[in-house]
Amino acid sequence: MRHILYGGDYNPEQWLDRPEILEQDLDYMIKAHINTVTLGMFSWAALEPEEGEYHLEWMENIVNRLYEHGISTILGTPSGARPKWMSDKYPEVLRVNENRVRNLFGGRHNHCYTSPIYREKIRGINTKLAKRFGGNPGVVLLHISNEYGGECHCPLCQEAFRMWLKDRYTTIENLNKAWWTTFWSHTYLSFDQIESPSSMGETALHGLNLDWKRFVTAQTADFTLHEIRSLREGGAEQPTTVNLMYDYAGLNYDKLAECVDIISWDTYPVWHKKEDILTARDNGLQHDYMRSLKHQPFLLMESCPSSTNWQGVSKLKRPGLLSAASFQALAHGSDSVLYFQIRQSRGASEKFHGAVIDHSGRDDTRVFQEVTQLGDGLSRLSEIVGSKVNASAALIYDVENRWAMEDSQGPRNDGLFYHEAVVKSYQALRRQGLDVDVISEQQDISSYRLVIAPMLYLFREGIEEKIRRFVESGGHFVMTYWSGIVNSTDLCYLGGTPHGLQDVFGLERTETDGLYDGEVNRLIPSENSGLSKEYECRNLCDLLKVGTAEPLLHYGREFYQGTPAVTKNRYKGGTAYYIGADAEQQFYDEFYQVITNEIGMKSLIAGKIPEDIEVTSRNTEKFRYYFIQNYKNEMVDISCMNLTGEVIHGDNKEELAAYGTVIVREEV
Amino acid sequence: MRHILYGGDYNPEQWLDRPEILEQDLDYMIKAHINTVTLGMFSWAALEPEEGEYHLEWMENIVNRLYEHGISTILGTPSGARPKWMSDKYPEVLRVNENRVRNLFGGRHNHCYTSPIYREKIRGINTKLAKRFGGNPGVVLLHISNEYGGECHCPLCQEAFRMWLKDRYTTIENLNKAWWTTFWSHTYLSFDQIESPSSMGETALHGLNLDWKRFVTAQTADFTLHEIRSLREGGAEQPTTVNLMYDYAGLNYDKLAECVDIISWDTYPVWHKKEDILTARDNGLQHDYMRSLKHQPFLLMESCPSSTNWQGVSKLKRPGLLSAASFQALAHGSDSVLYFQIRQSRGASEKFHGAVIDHSGRDDTRVFQEVTQLGDGLSRLSEIVGSKVNASAALIYDVENRWAMEDSQGPRNDGLFYHEAVVKSYQALRRQGLDVDVISEQQDISSYRLVIAPMLYLFREGIEEKIRRFVESGGHFVMTYWSGIVNSTDLCYLGGTPHGLQDVFGLERTETDGLYDGEVNRLIPSENSGLSKEYECRNLCDLLKVGTAEPLLHYGREFYQGTPAVTKNRYKGGTAYYIGADAEQQFYDEFYQVITNEIGMKSLIAGKIPEDIEVTSRNTEKFRYYFIQNYKNEMVDISCMNLTGEVIHGDNKEELAAYGTVIVREEV
Amino acid sequence: MRHILYGGDYNPEQWLDRPEILEQDLDYMIKAHINTVTLGMFSWAALEPEEGEYHLEWMENIVNRLYEHGISTILGTPSGARPKWMSDKYPEVLRVNENRVRNLFGGRHNHCYTSPIYREKIRGINTKLAKRFGGNPGVVLLHISNEYGGECHCPLCQEAFRMWLKDRYTTIENLNKAWWTTFWSHTYLSFDQIESPSSMGETALHGLNLDWKRFVTAQTADFTLHEIRSLREGGAEQPTTVNLMYDYAGLNYDKLAECVDIISWDTYPVWHKKEDILTARDNGLQHDYMRSLKHQPFLLMESCPSSTNWQGVSKLKRPGLLSAASFQALAHGSDSVLYFQIRQSRGASEKFHGAVIDHSGRDDTRVFQEVTQLGDGLSRLSEIVGSKVNASAALIYDVENRWAMEDSQGPRNDGLFYHEAVVKSYQALRRQGLDVDVISEQQDISSYRLVIAPMLYLFREGIEEKIRRFVESGGHFVMTYWSGIVNSTDLCYLGGTPHGLQDVFGLERTETDGLYDGEVNRLIPSENSGLSKEYECRNLCDLLKVGTAEPLLHYGREFYQGTPAVTKNRYKGGTAYYIGADAEQQFYDEFYQVITNEIGMKSLIAGKIPEDIEVTSRNTEKFRYYFIQNYKNEMVDISCMNLTGEVIHGDNKEELAAYGTVIVREEV
Repeated sequence: MRHILYGGDYNPEQWLDRPEILEQDLDYMIKAHINTVTLGMFSWAALEPEEGEYHLEWMENIVNRLYEHGISTILGTPSGARPKWMSDKYPEVLRVNENRVRNLFGGRHNHCYTSPIYREKIRGINTKLAKRFGGNPGVVLLHISNEYGGECHCPLCQEAFRMWLKDRYTTIENLNKAWWTTFWSHTYLSFDQIESPSSMGETALHGLNLDWKRFVTAQTADFTLHEIRSLREGGAEQPTTVNLMYDYAGLNYDKLAECVDIISWDTYPVWHKKEDILTARDNGLQHDYMRSLKHQPFLLMESCPSSTNWQGVSKLKRPGLLSAASFQALAHGSDSVLYFQIRQSRGASEKFHGAVIDHSGRDDTRVFQEVTQLGDGLSRLSEIVGSKVNASAALIYDVENRWAMEDSQGPRNDGLFYHEAVVKSYQALRRQGLDVDVISEQQDISSYRLVIAPMLYLFREGIEEKIRRFVESGGHFVMTYWSGIVNSTDLCYLGGTPHGLQDVFGLERTETDGLYDGEVNRLIPSENSGLSKEYECRNLCDLLKVGTAEPLLHYGREFYQGTPAVTKNRYKGGTAYYIGADAEQQFYDEFYQVITNEIGMKSLIAGKIPEDIEVTSRNTEKFRYYFIQNYKNEMVDISCMNLTGEVIHGDNKEELAAYGTVIVREEV
Repeated sequence: MRHILYGGDYNPEQWLDRPEILEQDLDYMIKAHINTVTLGMFSWAALEPEEGEYHLEWMENIVNRLYEHGISTILGTPSGARPKWMSDKYPEVLRVNENRVRNLFGGRHNHCYTSPIYREKIRGINTKLAKRFGGNPGVVLLHISNEYGGECHCPLCQEAFRMWLKDRYTTIENLNKAWWTTFWSHTYLSFDQIESPSSMGETALHGLNLDWKRFVTAQTADFTLHEIRSLREGGAEQPTTVNLMYDYAGLNYDKLAECVDIISWDTYPVWHKKEDILTARDNGLQHDYMRSLKHQPFLLMESCPSSTNWQGVSKLKRPGLLSAASFQALAHGSDSVLYFQIRQSRGASEKFHGAVIDHSGRDDTRVFQEVTQLGDGLSRLSEIVGSKVNASAALIYDVENRWAMEDSQGPRNDGLFYHEAVVKSYQALRRQGLDVDVISEQQDISSYRLVIAPMLYLFREGIEEKIRRFVESGGHFVMTYWSGIVNSTDLCYLGGTPHGLQDVFGLERTETDGLYDGEVNRLIPSENSGLSKEYECRNLCDLLKVGTAEPLLHYGREFYQGTPAVTKNRYKGGTAYYIGADAEQQFYDEFYQVITNEIGMKSLIAGKIPEDIEVTSRNTEKFRYYFIQNYKNEMVDISCMNLTGEVIHGDNKEELAAYGTVIVREEV
Repeated sequence: MRHILYGGDYNPEQWLDRPEILEQDLDYMIKAHINTVTLGMFSWAALEPEEGEYHLEWMENIVNRLYEHGISTILGTPSGARPKWMSDKYPEVLRVNENRVRNLFGGRHNHCYTSPIYREKIRGINTKLAKRFGGNPGVVLLHISNEYGGECHCPLCQEAFRMWLKDRYTTIENLNKAWWTTFWSHTYLSFDQIESPSSMGETALHGLNLDWKRFVTAQTADFTLHEIRSLREGGAEQPTTVNLMYDYAGLNYDKLAECVDIISWDTYPVWHKKEDILTARDNGLQHDYMRSLKHQPFLLMESCPSSTNWQGVSKLKRPGLLSAASFQALAHGSDSVLYFQIRQSRGASEKFHGAVIDHSGRDDTRVFQEVTQLGDGLSRLSEIVGSKVNASAALIYDVENRWAMEDSQGPRNDGLFYHEAVVKSYQALRRQGLDVDVISEQQDISSYRLVIAPMLYLFREGIEEKIRRFVESGGHFVMTYWSGIVNSTDLCYLGGTPHGLQDVFGLERTETDGLYDGEVNRLIPSENSGLSKEYECRNLCDLLKVGTAEPLLHYGREFYQGTPAVTKNRYKGGTAYYIGADAEQQFYDEFYQVITNEIGMKSLIAGKIPEDIEVTSRNTEKFRYYFIQNYKNEMVDISCMNLTGEVIHGDNKEELAAYGTVIVREEV
C-alpha cells in the first residue's frame, strides 16, 4: 500500500432505492479524504436473494464508481450473516447450543462451521465474488467473514470433534490419561463416546473443555481456509485478512493469523469512563498484541467515529479523542484508520451506532468535521506505511493459558485477574517509554532482552526449555505467582512448581494463598532490592521456599510474614525474577525501573515522560518515527521530554494540546 | 351507579364445604358496609368440573343471598385460570414461550389467545354464565378475565401474526423496508418466513419486535371481544370491564380500553419504603392514566386492605394509610374502592395476601376495623359518583414509545429512565396544585393549555402535525431530550430531529451524550430564564443547535459547556419548550412554576400547598369537590391553603390528621 | 471402634499405572498415623469397566496391603458416579430436570433414584463388592454412595410420586383439600393428573411443592435401603453410613438417618473470612445437629487438610486451625477425623482441592507436618471413643419447617433468615457454656430442661400437644415470631396463632410486620425483665395481643410502639417464652442468661469463659471430658475458667495457644 487506508464499512445495499443518497455519500467521502471502503460483509441477501440467483452487478457498479474517484474497496465475504431462505431450506446450517438445542434464524455469527451445506453455499458465493472482483483494480483486499466467533454443538460438530481428538491422541487410553477421566469414573471406552462439554452434562474434565476450545479454533481456521480456497478457485489473488476482536477469548488468534496475509482488528474502547490514559494503555496493549501476531503492520479495520450504541452508555467522544485514538493505532503499527461505519443504518439493532454520515445526512456535524480533518492529516503521512516496531521487551499473554486457568476450580473462583496482571506489567513498561511486543507462548523469545510472563499457569510443551535457554543466553525473565502449574492438557505437574524451572528461578512454590475480596497483604522491600516503599498485594500470594534466589521483598502479614514474596536469581548469563503476589500497579512501575536500570534498557526518549503522555515508535531502514500522544483533556508541557528530530505531524515539541499527537522523525 | 362500590374479590368456591364460614362472611360484609363483591374469576374448575358439565347453581345461590342483603356482584369470566382437564385433553391451550417450548399446566395467565379450542371453551362457559346471570339484578358488571397479559409463540400464534402483518403491510417489500431487514441480510421473501422474536433467534430487528408487541395487544383485544360476544350471545347486557395493572408494558391499554365500557385497575403500591407522598404521586399518576383512557370515572378493582404477600417485604400499612390510599382513588376519578380480597385463602401462593377477613376469622382485628370505618365514610359520599376531572394540563406517556425506546440499543442501555422522566414532570405539576391527564400519543390534545411530552422518541403518524397545530393555536408544549427520533416502525428519521418540528421548537438536536452512572453535568440558568439556581442533570444530554429558540439554561460542564440545554420558542400563537437533559426534580418544580406563571395557569387552591399534601378535584355540573390528602404520618397545619366551601368529609379546613383526607364542596 | 479413625478418601484407581506412587502413599500414611481410608466411591468405571465385567482384584490388593500395615478401609458403594457405558446404553438412568429435559452424561449425583435399571446395576456391583469384601477384616464400614442429593422429574419418578401421594391421601378429594387446589382452579380429578412442580408449570401450590420434597427424600431413602439390601444379600455385615452435608435443604436427613447405622458428614467451613469463633459456632451447630440425628457418636467423614478449591477463594488454613477444626468434631461427638483427600488428583475439577499428599509428593510440606502431628495427638485419645454428649438444652431446627417457610410467599420474600435465627440462640447458649442438642420437630423433647423453637412456622401433627406437655411438666420453652402458622400441608390455621398454644404462651399473634432491608425497630425492656439495655430488631415483628403473658420487652417504634414484643407465661409447672421479633445477637445472649439463671441451668464450667473460647463436653459412665478450644489467632489466658481435672491433651489449664485445644478429664 502506498498510503494510509482511510474509510470504513459501507452498506449501500441498504440504500439501493435511494440513488441520491449513494451519490451524496460519494461526495462526502471525497470531502473527508476517504480512500477505502469495506463492502459485502452483510450483503448475502442482496447478492444471492434466492438460492443460486446471483446479483453482483449493483456491487460492481459501486466498486467501479468508487474507484473512479480514487476509493478502493476491501471486499468482504458474506458468511457472517446468512439469508433466511438458507436456514429455512437447510436447518443444518444453524448452530446448536451446548444444551443441544438448535437456534432459530436470527442475529449473525450463527452458522455451523462444520456443515457441508454451509461450506458449499459459501463456496458458491465466494467463487462468484472472486470471478467478478478478482481482477477489479478497485478491490485491494479480501476480508474473510466478520468477527469469527462462537461454537456449535450439532451432531456434525460432535463427529468432527471426535475425529480431531482421534488425530491428537491416537488411542482412547492416551486421552483418558491426558484428561484424568478416572476422576468421578468418567473413563471413555472409545472415541465414539465423547461429547462436547455442556452445563447439562460434562464440565468437570478440564482437559475436555480445553480440547473443545482448541477444536473450535481449529474448525474455525479450517472454515477460514475453505473460504480462502473458494476465492482463489474463483481467481481472486488479492491478499486476505480476518477482523479480530478486543481481548477475545473464544478463539486462539495465533491459528487464525496463520490462515491470512494481514491481521486486522476492531477496536471499541470505553472512553472517558476512567482516566483516558488508562483506557489508552489497555487499547495499546491490544494493538501490540495484534501487531505481534505477525510482527508486521496490521490494519485497524473498525472503530467508531462517534459513540458506540451497544455499550452500556453511548458516550460521545470529546473533541480530539477521535484523532488521538486513530493515531494510537498508527503509533502501534497500523497502516489504516477504518471506521464502522460510513453511513448510519436507519433501522435494526445498530441504528444508533456512530457513523461518519449520520441520520441528519449533513456534512457540518461535529463528527464529520473531525473525520475530515483527520483524513487530511493522514493523507500527509504516507511515508510511515510499512514501517515496523522493534521492541526489545515482550509480554507473554497466552489464550490457551487463559482458557485453562479460568476454567480451573481454584485458587480463586471469585477472580484471578489475569488480564489485569498483564496490563500492570504493560503499563509499567510503557511508562518508562519502552516499546513492547505482546506474544503467545508459542513465539520465539530469543531476540528480546526482557520477557515477562504473568501468571503462566499452563506450560505448553517446550516452554521450560525456551525460558531456560533465554536466561542462559543472558536474557532477563520475569515470571509471577501461579505459574508452571499444569501441562498442556491441564494436568498438574508432579514434583514441585514452577515446573522444570526451579533451578532457573532458584526457588519452589510450596502453597498459594487466596485472599478474600478486600483482604490485603503487604510487600516489604529488603535493603538490596533497590526499592524503599512498601506495597499492597491482593488476591493471590505464593508461599516460596527459596534456594539460590535472592529475596527482594517479603510479606508483611499473615502466618507467612517475613517469607520471600519477590525474588531474583542470577542464572548463568541472565536473571530470573519471580513476583510471588498480585501487587499493586505502583510496585510494578518501580520494580521494572530497577530492573531496566540494572540491565541498561533505555527509554525511547531521553527526557522525562509526563503523566498522561504515551510514547511509541515505528521504524524504517532510514527513519525512526516517534509518536507522542496526550491523553489528557488539557494542554501538557512536553519540553521535559527533550525531543529531537523533525516534527512531521502536530505543532511542536514543547506543548501538546488536549488529545493531541505530535510525530517526530529522526534519521537512524 | 348510585353509590360508591365498596367490597372486593370473593372466593366462596374455596369454602363450599364450610357453610358456616360463608354465613359468617355475609355478616361481616354487612357490618363493614360492603355493597359489592367480585365472583367467578378463578372458579372455572368449580363451574365446569369436567368438560361440558356445568355447575352454576352454587354461585347463583350466593349471588342471590348477597343481593338479598344489598350486596351486588361483579361477575368475572374465568378465562384467567383454566381447569386441569382442559390442558390434559387439549395441550394447544397451553402457551409456548419464546424458545418454542410449551408450558406445563400451572399458574394462571397461561392460555394461548389464538387457540380455537380455548376460544370455544371460554365461549361455552361464558354463554352459560350469561344465560344464568344476564337477567340477575344482583349482577351489575361483567368483568372479563383477570389481568390480561403475556404472550404465546405457538404455531397458531405464528400464523395469526403472519396474517396480521400481511394485513398491515400488504407486500413483503413494504415490510422489509419498514423493518430495515437488509441490515445483516435478514430480508424476507414472503410472509410465511416470518417468526416471532426470540432470544434463540431474531432480536435484532426492532420493527419486528415492535410489531410483535402490537400483535400481542391486537390478539388480546380480539380475545377480549370474543369473550364479550359470548356473554352477549348468552343474553347478558350488563356493562363490561377489564382490570388493568400498574405501569404494565405488556399491552397497549388504549386498545383494551376500546373493547370495554368501563376501565378498572389493580393498585398495589409499596408504601412506607420511601416518603409516602412520593409513593402517592406515583400511584396518582397511574390513577390519572387509567382515568384518561376513557376520560370517564374508573373503578379501583383491586387493592390490599393489609400487606401484599408477593412483594419483597410484606409491610403493614400504618393506621390511616388504607383510608388515604382508598380516598386517593376517589380523588383521581374512581367510583369504587374494591379489595383483593374479602376472605384470605387457606392455602396456595396468595395465602398470606392481606384480606378484610383474615385467617383468625375475627372482626376485632385492626384491619377489619379500618375497613369498616372506611366503608361507613364512603357510604355518605354517593354524590361524587359520576363526577369528572377537568384537567387543563396533560402528560404524554405512551406505551408504544416505551416499547420502541427500551428495545433500541443506545443511547443508554444501562437505563433510560422514561418512567422517572414522566414522574418528574407529573410531580412538579401536582405540587403546584394542577390536575393532570395522562394520555397516549393517539389522544386529542387540542383542549389542553399545557401538554408535556417527555422522551417522545417514537413519533406515531401525525403527531408532528398535532403538536404544530396545538402550538399554533396558542398551546404550550414541552418536549424533552431524545424526542422525535424514529417513526412508527422504529426507523430513524433522516434530515434532523426532532422530526418535523425543528421550526416549532426553533432548534435541532445534533448529538446526544450518554453519561455514565454517577456522572453529572450542570444546568446554568440565563438571566432571562426566570430561574436563579443551578441544577444537576444526568444520564442523557442532548446537544442542541439553536435557531429561533431562546436559550434558558445552558450546560456547565464537558466540551458542550455553554451550549443551550433548555430553550423556549414562541411559535405563532403558542410556545414550545425543549428540555435537553435529564434534570433533577427541583429543576422541574421550579421550571414549571415559571411556565405556569407566565401562561397564567392557576392552582386548584388559592393558598400555599404544604409539603406532603396532595390536592385534586372532581366536578359535576353543579359542584366542584376538592380532595385534600395528608401523606405525612403526623398532623399537618393546612390553614395556609385558605380552603373555602363546605367540608363534606373529614374534620375541618385547618388541620389534617396523619394520613387524613378532607373533602370540600364548592358550588361552581 | 477402639481408636479414633484417622485418614480419609483415597483414590488409588487414578494411579494404578504408577505403583511407586501407591507405595509412597502407604509410607506417608504410616508416617502420618493414618489408620483408615475410604475407597471405591468413584471407582465404578474401574470396578466394572464394561457391563458385567467386574475387576475387583486391584482394590482387594490395596485393601489387604493397607490392612497389613494397620490401616482399615471404609468401603464406598459407587452409585454417586456412574460409568459412561451405562448412560449410553440405558438413558433412563440419567436425571430429568424440572423442565422435563434429560441430562447428558457428566458430573456426579446425576442418576434417577427410581430407574429399575439403575437399581439393578447398583445391585449388581454392590453384591459383588459385598461378596468380595464382606468377610475382609480390613473393611470396617460400608459407606453408601456419596452425598446423596438432587431430584429427577422423569416419567418413572412422576409415576412413583403419584403412587406415593395415593398412599398418603387415599382419595383425590383429600389431596385437593390439603393442597387448597380450588385456588386458581387447579383442582385435580385423579392422581393421574398430578405432575411434579416446575417453573414451566405448577409452582403456586405449596402443598404440592412440600410433598414433592418429601417424596424426593422418601425415594432417596428407598434407594439407600435398596443399596444396603444388595450389600446384605452379598453377605456384607459391616455397619453402614451415608455422608451428609452442611445445612443441606435438599433432603430430610431424619429419614436417611433411619436407614443407616452410623451418621457421618462432610464439613468445609469458610475459615478466616469472619471471626473464627463465629465460623466455629456455625460449624459446631452442624456437628450437634448430626450427633442429635441418632444421639450417638458420629463420624467426621470429610474435611480438607488445606484449602478447598470449589469455594470462592482457596484460603489457606493458618497454622493450628486444622487441629482446632479437627478437635472440634471430637468435642461435639465425632469418633473420627477424616479428610477428603489423601492424595491430590492430577486432573479434573478437584485437582486443586487440598490433600494430605499434594502434587509435589513430598512429606516436608507444612500441611503434611500438621497432619502428622495431629495424627500423633489423636492416637493417644482412644479413651474418648464412644463417649456421649448429655445436653439439657435443645434447639429445634426442622427441615420440613424450612421447606414450607421458604417456599411460602410472604411475609418477607427478601429474606426470612431462619438459619440465622437458629444460630443466634445457639450462640447464646454456647457462650454460657451449655451443651446443646439440635433436633427436628419429630424428636422427643421430654428429657430437656430448656427447648427453643425459632420460627416454628409449620406445626407437624402433634407438636402442640408435645409442647404443652413439656411445659406442663415443668419444662421451659422458648418460641419466636412466625410460629404455629400452618399445618403439615402448609394450610394456614384458622382461629388464631400460634395454633393450639395461645393459652400456653398466654397471647395471640394478630399481625406480622415485614421490615425493609435496613429498617430497624427497638426493643425496650420492662422493669421486671431482668434486662436493662435496649436492643435492635429487624426483618419481622409480630404484633401481639397479650392475655396471661407478662410482657418483658416492648417495641420502641412504629404504630405498634409500646406493645409487647417479648413475653413470659407461667403455665402449670413450666414457663413459655415468646420472642416476637428478629432481635440482634446481644439480646439473645443476655436474655438466655436471665432465663438460665432463673431456672438454675449451670454452665459446664465454674469460671468465666473468655471470648473466642469454645467449651464442650463428652461423657462416659466414669468420666466427663471437657474440651476447651481457642479460636483466636493468639494465646488466651484461660485461668479465669477455674478448670479442674486432669489434662489429657494440650499443655495446661492456664494458657491456651492460638487455635489450641486442651482436654481435661474429670471423674463423674
